[in-house]
Amino acid sequence: MFQYEYSNKVKAMRPSIIRELLKQMADPSLISFAGGNPDPEAFPAKEIREISDRLLSGPPGRVLQYSITEGTTELREQGIKYLNAQGPVAKETDDVMVVSGSQQVMDFLSKLLCNDGDLIATEDPAFLGALNSFRSNGARLAGVALEPDGPNLAMLEAVLTGDQKPKFYYTIPNFQNPTGATCSLEKRKAVYKLCKKHGVPILEDNPYGELRFTGEDLPPIKSFDEEGLVIYAASLSKVFAPGMRIALCAGPKALIGQMTVAKQGSDVHSNLWGQRVIEEFYKTYDFAAHIQRLRGVYREKANYMMDCLREKVGGRITFEPIEGGMFLWLNLPEGVDMQAYVKKCLEHKLALVPGNAFFVDGETPCQSVRCNFSTPTMEQIDKGTTIMREVLDGMM
Amino acid sequence: MFQYEYSNKVKAMRPSIIRELLKQMADPSLISFAGGNPDPEAFPAKEIREISDRLLSGPPGRVLQYSITEGTTELREQGIKYLNAQGPVAKETDDVMVVSGSQQVMDFLSKLLCNDGDLIATEDPAFLGALNSFRSNGARLAGVALEPDGPNLAMLEAVLTGDQKPKFYYTIPNFQNPTGATCSLEKRKAVYKLCKKHGVPILEDNPYGELRFTGEDLPPIKSFDEEGLVIYAASLSKVFAPGMRIALCAGPKALIGQMTVAKQGSDVHSNLWGQRVIEEFYKTYDFAAHIQRLRGVYREKANYMMDCLREKVGGRITFEPIEGGMFLWLNLPEGVDMQAYVKKCLEHKLALVPGNAFFVDGETPCQSVRCNFSTPTMEQIDKGTTIMREVLDGMM
Repeated sequence: MFQYEYSNKVKAMRPSIIRELLKQMADPSLISFAGGNPDPEAFPAKEIREISDRLLSGPPGRVLQYSITEGTTELREQGIKYLNAQGPVAKETDDVMVVSGSQQVMDFLSKLLCNDGDLIATEDPAFLGALNSFRSNGARLAGVALEPDGPNLAMLEAVLTGDQKPKFYYTIPNFQNPTGATCSLEKRKAVYKLCKKHGVPILEDNPYGELRFTGEDLPPIKSFDEEGLVIYAASLSKVFAPGMRIALCAGPKALIGQMTVAKQGSDVHSNLWGQRVIEEFYKTYDFAAHIQRLRGVYREKANYMMDCLREKVGGRITFEPIEGGMFLWLNLPEGVDMQAYVKKCLEHKLALVPGNAFFVDGETPCQSVRCNFSTPTMEQIDKGTTIMREVLDGMM
Repeated sequence: MFQYEYSNKVKAMRPSIIRELLKQMADPSLISFAGGNPDPEAFPAKEIREISDRLLSGPPGRVLQYSITEGTTELREQGIKYLNAQGPVAKETDDVMVVSGSQQVMDFLSKLLCNDGDLIATEDPAFLGALNSFRSNGARLAGVALEPDGPNLAMLEAVLTGDQKPKFYYTIPNFQNPTGATCSLEKRKAVYKLCKKHGVPILEDNPYGELRFTGEDLPPIKSFDEEGLVIYAASLSKVFAPGMRIALCAGPKALIGQMTVAKQGSDVHSNLWGQRVIEEFYKTYDFAAHIQRLRGVYREKANYMMDCLREKVGGRITFEPIEGGMFLWLNLPEGVDMQAYVKKCLEHKLALVPGNAFFVDGETPCQSVRCNFSTPTMEQIDKGTTIMREVLDGMM
């Protein structure tokens, strides 16, 4: 058989540990706190069905024909209002493009800006899918330690002013994946100021911003941007439905133009049905009410997960309470081997993700695990946290 | 404003001339022979609506939730039968993955196999989107002259044995874009033999194979493949609907696994609604009857276009008659400036694509234009070919 020889950039990619974990989840008795799926209860399924039926009763070309690469003008126009909900990120239609999930922004931006061996700065730990996407385009990664209120600013400046200037800095300021941390207003301003000072663009990824169930919205870093320095990725997977693979991206017009050329060379355009459904939802339904309902679903589950953890493993397993998103970052007690704990939980049919999986350097010492509350049912949250207690009791 | 500096690979991309042409098409009085859109009459719109309604009445997670990167097991299983319609290209589910349009195969394969400056061999002229996709991943291109019955074999061997061995050879054997040429059985075998001899994989792109309206099907190059040397891309855009952005890819399991990792880093998975609709169509409708109907639509239009051309510009503008696909490759008479002819036609509200746009080297002397018959109506075919005669009369 022919032996394929892979490019250096692909050799640098790491197989996703989450993907490996997911394979084990075919076992229906397994409880998963390891995934990141939205609660299907939160999907506007009825509305999507109504819209889809109307669309497919109309002229077929509107939903089934080839469309333009940057996305339908209607969705880009409608999208501006919703993109700006937490602060201004886009003014005109040409500031916006439609992508097939926000992961495409990471793929295209790193392809556009990185030659082989170029550096991308990232908060550390960070969203695994982003890191792999960057690596797949030949980039090397420089991690900036993430604190509960955002990146360590001294470390960020050190990375920005190092021997090799990063091509951009990657961050999820709201309810970060994996830590759940939210960057404070002060640090948002400081991050923008530092990046501006050193001429390093920012990729601001905001998949969870709408999922704030308590506290006040903070403005996006993009809202401070007067230099065209920030590229803003807005997943719609958590607000509508991830199976649609539709997200919005806002940025300076010239860059959006180049991103469009990259998209043309990849998937030509995003699924048109998904684009039309979302544009009709924006036009004809009460989006604010939908978001309120969705926040209610997540609030209830997050609070229940935090209550269960406090009751069953409180004082031993610690965490920063979260105000939104999908994830808790749990710190295991000193002396408990984190990897062994995750393994033992899996033997007891509970899946968690070992925290080191999210670090730029997978060998970084780590006592934390990522814990998701959006996918499991209330009953599974109860059962799973009981397993966490039992396994912990057995190891201490 | 911040000035972005783009990577070398992106600088090598050429803005699509077709894209530029399409922008002018906002003018509703323009007749376009320049596009490559399927006839909306050929979409199974009624069936898609029925299936979609059933799907969206069922559990939302089946259509709206995150799904697996390689595509739904059901679509991959169902797909095998249809992939093998013109000869065996896939045996098992793991030989197949779902992609968001076959362009993604070009993106991922060139990303997987090419370091910066690596060579890809391609028939020349070739599908423009493929060439740009290859360039976007840092590849250089080596063209192999395309003859009416397939590539010039001596030139192919020269490229395969040159100083720099190509990472793969790219070909559309059926009703090629832009020339409409179909590779003969002898040349298919010879291409496989040469590539096997020199250890160069083949990317066989088959977007138009199902659109044969006369003559006999020829076996795919992939059907000769015992070495895992051929990656087969099957667009479903012409068979179902391009707005869905769903295609299938068949290849050796290990490579499909790597393609899946690349896809995970780009769009995570393809639109789930589109996957489910196609899988249900395969399961519950008469696919063969659908293809027969579709071939009827294209046969009628192609024959009408060829009749109009013979009647109005016959003897002056020549072409090889085609047996399928969407394109005719028209050769202008010596002494008529091809670029000036295209420009004059556009002034008379008819869009054609200048043939040099499809060559690896855009400066290659070229007397041909690409002419599409699937997008215009019968009336537009009549009017447009009249414009071609009038402009030609004025220039000769």
